Amino acid sequence: MGRNFSMEKLQQLYEGKAKKVYAVKGDADLFIVEYKDDATAFNGEKRGTITGKGVINNKMSNILFKMLEANGVKTHFVKELSDRETLVKAVKIIPLEIIIRNVAAGSFSKRYGVEEGRELKAPTLEFSLKNDALNDPLINNYHIIALDIASEAELKIISDMAFKINELLKNYFANIGVKLIDFKIEMGRDKDNNIILADEISPDTCRFWDAETNEKLDKDRFRRDLGNVEAAYQEMFKRVSK
Amino acid sequence: MGRNFSMEKLQQLYEGKAKKVYAVKGDADLFIVEYKDDATAFNGEKRGTITGKGVINNKMSNILFKMLEANGVKTHFVKELSDRETLVKAVKIIPLEIIIRNVAAGSFSKRYGVEEGRELKAPTLEFSLKNDALNDPLINNYHIIALDIASEAELKIISDMAFKINELLKNYFANIGVKLIDFKIEMGRDKDNNIILADEISPDTCRFWDAETNEKLDKDRFRRDLGNVEAAYQEMFKRVSK
Repeated sequence: MGRNFSMEKLQQLYEGKAKKVYAVKGDADLFIVEYKDDATAFNGEKRGTITGKGVINNKMSNILFKMLEANGVKTHFVKELSDRETLVKAVKIIPLEIIIRNVAAGSFSKRYGVEEGRELKAPTLEFSLKNDALNDPLINNYHIIALDIASEAELKIISDMAFKINELLKNYFANIGVKLIDFKIEMGRDKDNNIILADEISPDTCRFWDAETNEKLDKDRFRRDLGNVEAAYQEMFKRVSK
Repeated sequence: MGRNFSMEKLQQLYEGKAKKVYAVKGDADLFIVEYKDDATAFNGEKRGTITGKGVINNKMSNILFKMLEANGVKTHFVKELSDRETLVKAVKIIPLEIIIRNVAAGSFSKRYGVEEGRELKAPTLEFSLKNDALNDPLINNYHIIALDIASEAELKIISDMAFKINELLKNYFANIGVKLIDFKIEMGRDKDNNIILADEISPDTCRFWDAETNEKLDKDRFRRDLGNVEAAYQEMFKRVSK
Protein backbone atom coordinates (compact mmCIF):
# COMPACT_ATOMS: atom_id res chain seq x y z
CA MET A 1 0.00 0.00 0.00
CA GLY A 2 3.08 2.28 0.29
CA ARG A 3 1.65 4.06 3.30
CA ASN A 4 3.63 4.60 6.47
CA PHE A 5 1.80 2.77 9.23
CA SER A 6 3.84 4.09 12.10
CA MET A 7 1.20 6.75 12.00
CA GLU A 8 0.19 9.08 14.71
CA LYS A 9 -3.27 9.43 16.11
CA LEU A 10 -4.45 12.99 16.00
CA GLN A 11 -7.30 14.28 18.11
CA GLN A 12 -10.13 11.99 19.08
CA LEU A 13 -13.06 12.69 16.77
CA TYR A 14 -15.71 10.63 18.47
CA GLU A 15 -16.21 8.31 21.40
CA GLY A 16 -19.05 5.87 21.03
CA LYS A 17 -20.30 3.21 23.39
CA ALA A 18 -17.81 0.58 22.19
CA LYS A 19 -15.23 2.44 20.09
CA LYS A 20 -13.21 5.60 19.77
CA VAL A 21 -12.40 7.15 16.42
CA TYR A 22 -9.28 9.26 15.83
CA ALA A 23 -8.10 11.46 13.01
CA VAL A 24 -4.76 10.46 11.43
CA LYS A 25 -1.93 12.96 11.26
CA GLY A 26 -1.26 14.01 7.71
CA ASP A 27 -4.05 12.03 6.06
CA ALA A 28 -7.59 13.37 6.13
CA ASP A 29 -8.85 10.32 4.24
CA LEU A 30 -8.10 7.90 7.09
CA PHE A 31 -9.33 7.28 10.62
CA ILE A 32 -8.05 5.01 13.37
CA VAL A 33 -10.71 3.04 15.22
CA GLU A 34 -9.96 1.79 18.74
CA TYR A 35 -12.17 -0.90 20.27
CA LYS A 36 -13.05 -0.77 23.99
CA ASP A 37 -14.22 -3.47 26.41
CA ASP A 38 -17.18 -1.30 27.47
CA ALA A 39 -20.56 -2.90 26.94
CA THR A 40 -23.90 -1.13 26.97
CA ALA A 41 -27.43 -2.26 26.24
CA PHE A 42 -30.93 -0.78 26.04
CA ASN A 43 -29.70 2.55 24.71
CA GLY A 44 -27.09 2.91 27.44
CA GLU A 45 -29.36 2.05 30.37
CA LYS A 46 -27.32 -1.05 31.17
CA ARG A 47 -23.55 -0.70 31.36
CA GLY A 48 -20.72 -3.10 32.00
CA THR A 49 -17.42 -4.50 30.80
CA ILE A 50 -16.77 -7.60 28.74
CA THR A 51 -13.08 -8.34 29.25
CA GLY A 52 -11.27 -8.90 25.98
CA LYS A 53 -14.24 -7.84 23.87
CA GLY A 54 -12.40 -4.96 22.22
CA VAL A 55 -9.66 -7.24 20.90
CA ILE A 56 -12.13 -9.87 19.69
CA ASN A 57 -14.45 -7.38 18.00
CA ASN A 58 -11.54 -5.63 16.30
CA LYS A 59 -10.01 -8.82 14.93
CA MET A 60 -13.31 -10.50 14.06
CA SER A 61 -14.58 -7.43 12.22
CA ASN A 62 -11.36 -7.27 10.22
CA ILE A 63 -11.57 -10.95 9.22
CA LEU A 64 -15.18 -10.48 8.13
CA PHE A 65 -14.56 -7.19 6.32
CA LYS A 66 -11.71 -8.84 4.36
CA MET A 67 -14.02 -11.74 3.46
CA LEU A 68 -16.70 -9.28 2.29
CA GLU A 69 -14.17 -7.24 0.28
CA ALA A 70 -12.99 -10.44 -1.42
CA ASN A 71 -16.62 -10.95 -2.46
CA GLY A 72 -17.12 -7.50 -3.92
CA VAL A 73 -18.48 -5.54 -0.94
CA LYS A 74 -16.74 -2.19 -0.47
CA THR A 75 -15.80 -1.57 3.17
CA HIS A 76 -13.85 0.99 5.20
CA PHE A 77 -11.17 -1.58 6.19
CA VAL A 78 -7.56 -0.64 5.43
CA LYS A 79 -5.25 -2.40 7.89
CA GLU A 80 -5.17 -3.81 11.39
CA LEU A 81 -2.72 -1.73 13.43
CA SER A 82 -2.80 -3.55 16.77
CA ASP A 83 -4.99 -5.82 18.86
CA ARG A 84 -7.50 -3.03 19.40
CA GLU A 85 -6.76 -0.57 16.60
CA THR A 86 -7.59 -0.58 12.92
CA LEU A 87 -6.89 1.89 10.18
CA VAL A 88 -10.03 2.63 8.15
CA LYS A 89 -11.12 4.93 5.37
CA ALA A 90 -12.61 8.16 6.66
CA VAL A 91 -16.35 8.19 6.10
CA LYS A 92 -19.31 10.27 7.16
CA ILE A 93 -21.60 7.75 8.81
CA ILE A 94 -25.16 7.71 7.45
CA PRO A 95 -27.21 7.97 10.68
CA LEU A 96 -29.12 4.73 10.15
CA GLU A 97 -28.89 1.39 11.88
CA ILE A 98 -29.32 -1.05 9.00
CA ILE A 99 -30.84 -4.22 10.43
CA ILE A 100 -31.29 -7.53 8.62
CA ARG A 101 -33.23 -10.37 10.22
CA ASN A 102 -33.35 -14.03 9.18
CA VAL A 103 -35.07 -15.34 12.32
CA ALA A 104 -37.41 -13.50 14.71
CA ALA A 105 -35.64 -12.36 17.90
CA GLY A 106 -35.10 -9.40 20.20
CA SER A 107 -36.93 -6.16 19.51
CA PHE A 108 -38.67 -7.64 16.46
CA SER A 109 -40.22 -10.42 18.54
CA LYS A 110 -41.31 -7.99 21.21
CA ARG A 111 -42.63 -5.39 18.78
CA TYR A 112 -44.82 -7.77 16.75
CA GLY A 113 -45.54 -10.48 19.31
CA VAL A 114 -43.66 -13.18 17.38
CA GLU A 115 -41.90 -15.93 19.32
CA GLU A 116 -38.09 -15.89 19.22
CA GLY A 117 -36.64 -18.45 16.87
CA ARG A 118 -39.38 -18.31 14.24
CA GLU A 119 -37.74 -18.45 10.81
CA LEU A 120 -38.92 -15.56 8.64
CA LYS A 121 -40.34 -16.33 5.18
CA ALA A 122 -37.69 -14.05 3.69
CA PRO A 123 -34.94 -11.91 5.24
CA THR A 124 -36.24 -8.52 6.36
CA LEU A 125 -34.50 -5.16 6.26
CA GLU A 126 -35.32 -2.31 8.60
CA PHE A 127 -33.80 1.04 9.45
CA SER A 128 -33.56 2.83 12.76
CA LEU A 129 -32.60 6.46 12.98
CA LYS A 130 -29.36 6.70 15.01
CA ASN A 131 -30.45 9.17 17.65
CA ASP A 132 -30.04 8.28 21.32
CA ALA A 133 -32.27 11.12 22.52
CA LEU A 134 -35.12 9.76 20.36
CA ASN A 135 -34.29 6.15 21.30
CA ASP A 136 -33.27 5.13 17.75
CA PRO A 137 -36.80 5.02 16.28
CA LEU A 138 -37.73 2.82 13.34
CA ILE A 139 -37.79 4.83 10.14
CA ASN A 140 -38.89 3.86 6.64
CA ASN A 141 -37.70 4.78 3.16
CA TYR A 142 -40.27 7.56 2.68
CA HIS A 143 -39.26 9.20 5.97
CA ILE A 144 -35.55 8.87 5.18
CA ILE A 145 -36.07 10.66 1.88
CA ALA A 146 -38.45 13.28 3.33
CA LEU A 147 -35.96 14.12 6.10
CA ASP A 148 -32.97 14.26 3.66
CA ILE A 149 -31.06 11.45 5.39
CA ALA A 150 -30.40 9.57 2.16
CA SER A 151 -31.65 9.74 -1.41
CA GLU A 152 -33.81 7.15 -3.11
CA ALA A 153 -30.81 6.04 -5.21
CA GLU A 154 -28.66 5.70 -2.10
CA LEU A 155 -31.36 3.65 -0.35
CA LYS A 156 -31.35 1.24 -3.30
CA ILE A 157 -27.56 0.83 -2.96
CA ILE A 158 -27.78 0.44 0.83
CA SER A 159 -30.55 -2.19 0.57
CA ASP A 160 -28.80 -4.20 -2.15
CA MET A 161 -25.53 -4.13 -0.18
CA ALA A 162 -27.26 -5.17 3.04
CA PHE A 163 -28.95 -8.21 1.48
CA LYS A 164 -25.70 -9.22 -0.27
CA ILE A 165 -23.79 -8.94 3.01
CA ASN A 166 -26.47 -11.10 4.65
CA GLU A 167 -26.05 -13.87 2.08
CA LEU A 168 -22.25 -13.81 2.42
CA LEU A 169 -22.33 -13.77 6.23
CA LYS A 170 -25.04 -16.45 6.49
CA ASN A 171 -22.95 -18.83 4.38
CA TYR A 172 -19.75 -17.95 6.20
CA PHE A 173 -21.25 -18.59 9.63
CA ALA A 174 -23.11 -21.74 8.52
CA ASN A 175 -19.69 -23.17 7.65
CA ILE A 176 -18.50 -22.68 11.23
CA GLY A 177 -21.65 -24.06 12.88
CA VAL A 178 -23.36 -20.75 13.61
CA LYS A 179 -26.84 -19.49 12.66
CA LEU A 180 -26.91 -15.80 11.80
CA ILE A 181 -30.20 -14.72 13.39
CA ASP A 182 -29.95 -10.97 12.71
CA PHE A 183 -27.39 -8.19 12.58
CA LYS A 184 -26.95 -4.42 12.53
CA ILE A 185 -24.54 -2.68 10.19
CA GLU A 186 -23.73 0.92 9.43
CA MET A 187 -22.59 2.51 6.21
CA GLY A 188 -20.86 5.75 5.43
CA ARG A 189 -20.04 8.07 2.54
CA ASP A 190 -16.35 8.24 1.60
CA LYS A 191 -14.66 11.35 0.20
CA ASP A 192 -16.12 10.63 -3.26
CA ASN A 193 -19.60 10.06 -1.77
CA ASN A 194 -19.44 6.34 -2.43
CA ILE A 195 -21.38 4.32 0.12
CA ILE A 196 -19.20 1.73 1.87
CA LEU A 197 -19.64 -0.60 4.81
CA ALA A 198 -18.28 0.89 8.05
CA ASP A 199 -18.55 0.29 11.83
CA GLU A 200 -18.09 -3.37 12.91
CA ILE A 201 -19.45 -6.90 12.60
CA SER A 202 -19.12 -8.74 15.90
CA PRO A 203 -21.05 -10.44 18.71
CA ASP A 204 -21.98 -6.88 19.78
CA THR A 205 -23.84 -6.27 16.53
CA CYS A 206 -25.06 -9.73 15.46
CA ARG A 207 -27.14 -12.47 17.00
CA PHE A 208 -25.24 -15.75 16.67
CA TRP A 209 -26.82 -19.05 17.74
CA ASP A 210 -24.92 -22.33 17.78
CA ALA A 211 -26.32 -24.36 14.85
CA GLU A 212 -26.69 -27.54 16.94
CA THR A 213 -27.76 -26.32 20.36
CA ASN A 214 -29.18 -22.82 19.65
CA GLU A 215 -26.93 -21.57 22.44
CA LYS A 216 -26.56 -17.80 22.25
CA LEU A 217 -23.02 -16.71 21.35
CA ASP A 218 -23.50 -12.93 21.35
CA LYS A 219 -24.30 -9.84 23.38
CA ASP A 220 -27.70 -11.20 24.41
CA ARG A 221 -25.73 -13.08 27.12
CA PHE A 222 -24.86 -9.65 28.54
CA ARG A 223 -28.25 -8.00 27.85
CA ARG A 224 -30.16 -10.84 29.48
CA ASP A 225 -27.68 -11.77 32.24
CA LEU A 226 -27.21 -15.29 30.87
CA GLY A 227 -23.66 -15.66 32.17
CA ASN A 228 -20.58 -16.89 30.28
CA VAL A 229 -20.41 -13.66 28.33
CA GLU A 230 -16.65 -13.66 27.78
CA ALA A 231 -16.67 -17.38 26.94
CA ALA A 232 -19.27 -16.81 24.20
CA TYR A 233 -17.19 -14.05 22.60
CA GLN A 234 -14.09 -16.27 22.80
CA GLU A 235 -15.94 -19.22 21.27
CA MET A 236 -17.11 -17.08 18.34
CA PHE A 237 -13.60 -15.72 17.87
CA LYS A 238 -12.13 -19.24 17.92
CA ARG A 239 -14.52 -20.37 15.19
CA VAL A 240 -13.97 -17.29 13.01
CA SER A 241 -10.17 -17.56 13.38
CA LYS A 242 -9.94 -21.15 12.17
CA MET B 1 -79.31 -1.07 -7.10
CA GLY B 2 -82.50 -3.17 -6.78
CA ARG B 3 -81.70 -4.05 -3.17
CA ASN B 4 -84.24 -3.77 -0.40
CA PHE B 5 -82.91 -1.22 2.02
CA SER B 6 -85.45 -1.78 4.73
CA MET B 7 -82.91 -4.34 5.79
CA GLU B 8 -82.46 -5.83 9.16
CA LYS B 9 -79.29 -5.71 11.18
CA LEU B 10 -78.20 -9.15 12.23
CA GLN B 11 -75.79 -9.78 15.08
CA GLN B 12 -73.12 -7.25 15.89
CA LEU B 13 -69.84 -8.47 14.41
CA TYR B 14 -67.51 -5.97 15.96
CA GLU B 15 -67.47 -2.95 18.22
CA GLY B 16 -64.54 -0.61 17.76
CA LYS B 17 -63.68 2.61 19.51
CA ALA B 18 -65.86 4.76 17.24
CA LYS B 19 -68.07 2.36 15.28
CA LYS B 20 -70.08 -0.84 15.44
CA VAL B 21 -70.31 -3.23 12.52
CA TYR B 22 -73.33 -5.48 11.95
CA ALA B 23 -74.04 -8.38 9.63
CA VAL B 24 -77.00 -7.91 7.29
CA LYS B 25 -79.82 -10.44 7.30
CA GLY B 26 -79.86 -12.39 4.08
CA ASP B 27 -76.78 -10.84 2.49
CA ALA B 28 -73.34 -12.03 3.53
CA ASP B 29 -71.70 -9.54 1.17
CA LEU B 30 -72.91 -6.49 3.11
CA PHE B 31 -72.31 -4.94 6.51
CA ILE B 32 -74.00 -2.06 8.29
CA VAL B 33 -71.67 0.39 10.01
CA GLU B 34 -72.99 2.50 12.89
CA TYR B 35 -71.04 5.56 14.02
CA LYS B 36 -70.82 6.41 17.75
CA ASP B 37 -70.04 9.68 19.54
CA ASP B 38 -67.39 7.94 21.65
CA ALA B 39 -63.92 9.40 21.33
CA THR B 40 -60.69 7.79 22.41
CA ALA B 41 -57.05 8.76 22.03
CA PHE B 42 -53.61 7.38 22.85
CA ASN B 43 -54.64 3.78 22.25
CA GLY B 44 -57.73 4.08 24.47
CA GLU B 45 -56.00 5.74 27.43
CA LYS B 46 -58.06 8.90 27.00
CA ARG B 47 -61.83 8.53 26.62
CA GLY B 48 -64.67 10.95 26.09
CA THR B 49 -67.67 11.90 24.00
CA ILE B 50 -67.86 14.33 21.13
CA THR B 51 -71.56 15.08 20.77
CA GLY B 52 -72.76 14.74 17.20
CA LYS B 53 -69.46 13.24 15.99
CA GLY B 54 -71.06 9.98 14.84
CA VAL B 55 -73.48 11.77 12.53
CA ILE B 56 -70.77 14.05 11.13
CA ASN B 57 -68.23 11.26 10.58
CA ASN B 58 -70.84 9.05 8.91
CA LYS B 59 -72.03 11.74 6.52
CA MET B 60 -68.59 13.21 5.84
CA SER B 61 -67.08 9.80 5.11
CA ASN B 62 -69.89 9.06 2.69
CA ILE B 63 -69.43 12.34 0.82
CA LEU B 64 -65.70 11.70 0.55
CA PHE B 65 -66.06 8.03 -0.42
CA LYS B 66 -68.47 9.03 -3.21
CA MET B 67 -65.97 11.66 -4.42
CA LEU B 68 -63.18 9.05 -4.41
CA GLU B 69 -65.37 6.48 -6.23
CA ALA B 70 -66.15 9.11 -8.88
CA ASN B 71 -62.38 9.41 -9.37
CA GLY B 72 -61.71 5.72 -9.76
CA VAL B 73 -60.95 4.64 -6.18
CA LYS B 74 -62.81 1.48 -5.16
CA THR B 75 -64.41 1.82 -1.72
CA HIS B 76 -66.74 -0.16 0.51
CA PHE B 77 -69.49 2.50 0.31
CA VAL B 78 -72.93 1.30 -0.81
CA LYS B 79 -75.60 3.59 0.67
CA GLU B 80 -76.27 5.87 3.60
CA LEU B 81 -79.10 4.33 5.65
CA SER B 82 -79.57 6.95 8.35
CA ASP B 83 -77.72 9.76 10.13
CA ARG B 84 -75.43 7.26 11.80
CA GLU B 85 -75.71 4.14 9.66
CA THR B 86 -74.23 3.22 6.32
CA LEU B 87 -74.48 0.08 4.25
CA VAL B 88 -71.07 -1.06 3.07
CA LYS B 89 -69.55 -4.00 1.23
CA ALA B 90 -68.40 -6.74 3.56
CA VAL B 91 -64.60 -6.82 3.70
CA LYS B 92 -61.95 -8.48 5.77
CA ILE B 93 -59.93 -5.56 7.09
CA ILE B 94 -56.18 -5.79 6.42
CA PRO B 95 -54.76 -5.14 9.91
CA LEU B 96 -52.71 -2.11 8.90
CA GLU B 97 -53.16 1.57 9.64
CA ILE B 98 -52.16 3.18 6.35
CA ILE B 99 -50.85 6.64 7.14
CA ILE B 100 -50.01 9.38 4.65
CA ARG B 101 -48.32 12.59 5.76
CA ASN B 102 -47.92 15.84 3.85
CA VAL B 103 -46.76 17.96 6.78
CA ALA B 104 -44.93 16.86 9.96
CA ALA B 105 -47.25 16.55 12.97
CA GLY B 106 -48.28 14.29 15.83
CA SER B 107 -46.41 11.02 16.35
CA PHE B 108 -44.13 11.70 13.37
CA SER B 109 -42.91 14.97 14.90
CA LYS B 110 -42.37 13.35 18.27
CA ARG B 111 -40.70 10.23 16.87
CA TYR B 112 -38.14 12.06 14.71
CA GLY B 113 -37.81 15.36 16.57
CA VAL B 114 -39.25 17.41 13.69
CA GLU B 115 -41.29 20.52 14.50
CA GLU B 116 -45.00 20.35 13.74
CA GLY B 117 -45.96 22.18 10.58
CA ARG B 118 -42.80 21.45 8.59
CA GLU B 119 -43.80 20.64 5.02
CA LEU B 120 -42.32 17.31 3.94
CA LYS B 121 -40.29 17.18 0.70
CA ALA B 122 -42.68 14.53 -0.59
CA PRO B 123 -45.71 12.80 0.94
CA THR B 124 -44.71 9.86 3.13
CA LEU B 125 -46.48 6.56 3.60
CA GLU B 126 -46.16 4.43 6.71
CA PHE B 127 -47.89 1.38 8.11
CA SER B 128 -48.75 0.51 11.69
CA LEU B 129 -49.83 -2.95 12.67
CA LYS B 130 -53.37 -2.73 14.08
CA ASN B 131 -52.83 -4.40 17.43
CA ASP B 132 -53.87 -2.60 20.60
CA ALA B 133 -51.94 -4.98 22.87
CA LEU B 134 -48.73 -4.16 20.97
CA ASN B 135 -49.62 -0.45 20.79
CA ASP B 136 -49.97 -0.40 16.98
CA PRO B 137 -46.24 -0.59 16.18
CA LEU B 138 -44.75 0.78 12.97
CA ILE B 139 -44.18 -1.99 10.46
CA ASN B 140 -42.45 -1.94 7.09
CA ASN B 141 -43.01 -3.77 3.81
CA TYR B 142 -40.47 -6.51 4.55
CA HIS B 143 -42.08 -7.27 7.91
CA ILE B 144 -45.60 -7.24 6.42
CA ILE B 145 -44.53 -9.82 3.84
CA ALA B 146 -42.52 -11.91 6.34
CA LEU B 147 -45.48 -12.05 8.72
CA ASP B 148 -47.98 -12.89 5.92
CA ILE B 149 -50.10 -9.78 6.50
CA ALA B 150 -50.15 -8.83 2.81
CA SER B 151 -48.27 -9.90 -0.29
CA GLU B 152 -45.78 -7.77 -2.20
CA ALA B 153 -48.33 -7.34 -5.02
CA GLU B 154 -51.00 -6.24 -2.54
CA LEU B 155 -48.60 -3.75 -0.94
CA LYS B 156 -48.03 -2.20 -4.36
CA ILE B 157 -51.81 -1.81 -4.82
CA ILE B 158 -52.25 -0.43 -1.29
CA SER B 159 -49.42 2.10 -1.73
CA ASP B 160 -50.61 3.29 -5.14
CA MET B 161 -54.18 3.66 -3.85
CA ALA B 162 -53.02 5.53 -0.74
CA PHE B 163 -51.01 8.10 -2.71
CA LYS B 164 -53.86 8.55 -5.22
CA ILE B 165 -56.33 9.08 -2.37
CA ASN B 166 -53.94 11.66 -0.91
CA GLU B 167 -53.84 13.64 -4.15
CA LEU B 168 -57.64 13.60 -4.49
CA LEU B 169 -58.24 14.55 -0.85
CA LYS B 170 -55.56 17.26 -0.83
CA ASN B 171 -57.18 18.95 -3.82
CA TYR B 172 -60.66 18.50 -2.42
CA PHE B 173 -59.79 20.06 0.92
CA ALA B 174 -57.70 22.85 -0.62
CA ASN B 175 -60.86 23.92 -2.43
CA ILE B 176 -62.68 24.36 0.89
CA GLY B 177 -59.85 26.18 2.64
CA VAL B 178 -58.38 23.23 4.51
CA LYS B 179 -54.83 21.84 4.55
CA LEU B 180 -54.69 18.07 4.72
CA ILE B 181 -51.75 17.53 7.10
CA ASP B 182 -51.96 13.72 7.38
CA PHE B 183 -54.52 10.95 7.54
CA LYS B 184 -55.04 7.29 8.40
CA ILE B 185 -57.04 4.95 6.21
CA GLU B 186 -57.79 1.24 6.27
CA MET B 187 -58.37 -1.15 3.43
CA GLY B 188 -60.00 -4.54 3.23
CA ARG B 189 -60.35 -7.53 0.95
CA ASP B 190 -63.81 -8.03 -0.56
CA LYS B 191 -65.30 -11.45 -1.36
CA ASP B 192 -63.23 -11.63 -4.56
CA ASN B 193 -60.06 -10.61 -2.69
CA ASN B 194 -60.01 -7.18 -4.32
CA ILE B 195 -58.51 -4.53 -2.09
CA ILE B 196 -60.91 -1.62 -1.49
CA LEU B 197 -60.93 1.39 0.78
CA ALA B 198 -62.90 0.77 4.00
CA ASP B 199 -63.28 2.36 7.45
CA GLU B 200 -63.86 6.14 7.45
CA ILE B 201 -62.37 9.51 6.48
CA SER B 202 -63.26 12.15 9.06
CA PRO B 203 -61.80 14.56 11.64
CA ASP B 204 -61.16 11.43 13.75
CA THR B 205 -58.76 10.03 11.15
CA CYS B 206 -57.30 13.12 9.45
CA ARG B 207 -55.47 16.23 10.56
CA PHE B 208 -57.20 19.26 9.05
CA TRP B 209 -55.75 22.74 9.48
CA ASP B 210 -57.54 25.88 8.33
CA ALA B 211 -55.61 27.10 5.29
CA GLU B 212 -55.54 30.72 6.50
CA THR B 213 -55.12 30.47 10.26
CA ASN B 214 -53.67 26.94 10.75
CA GLU B 215 -56.42 26.42 13.32
CA LYS B 216 -56.84 22.72 14.04
CA LEU B 217 -60.20 21.35 12.86
CA ASP B 218 -59.80 17.72 13.92
CA LYS B 219 -59.47 15.28 16.80
CA ASP B 220 -56.26 16.95 18.01
CA ARG B 221 -58.64 19.41 19.75
CA PHE B 222 -59.82 16.46 21.85
CA ARG B 223 -56.41 14.77 22.22
CA ARG B 224 -54.75 17.98 23.36
CA ASP B 225 -57.66 19.53 25.29
CA LEU B 226 -57.79 22.56 22.99
CA GLY B 227 -61.52 23.16 23.49
CA ASN B 228 -64.19 23.80 20.83
CA VAL B 229 -64.06 20.16 19.80
CA GLU B 230 -67.67 19.93 18.59
CA ALA B 231 -67.42 23.30 16.85
CA ALA B 232 -64.38 22.09 14.86
CA TYR B 233 -66.21 18.96 13.69
CA GLN B 234 -69.24 21.08 12.75
CA GLU B 235 -67.08 23.57 10.86
CA MET B 236 -65.46 20.76 8.84
CA PHE B 237 -68.86 19.25 8.12
CA LYS B 238 -70.23 22.62 7.00
CA ARG B 239 -67.37 23.07 4.54
CA VAL B 240 -67.59 19.51 3.18
CA SER B 241 -71.40 19.75 2.80
CA LYS B 242 -71.33 22.89 0.63
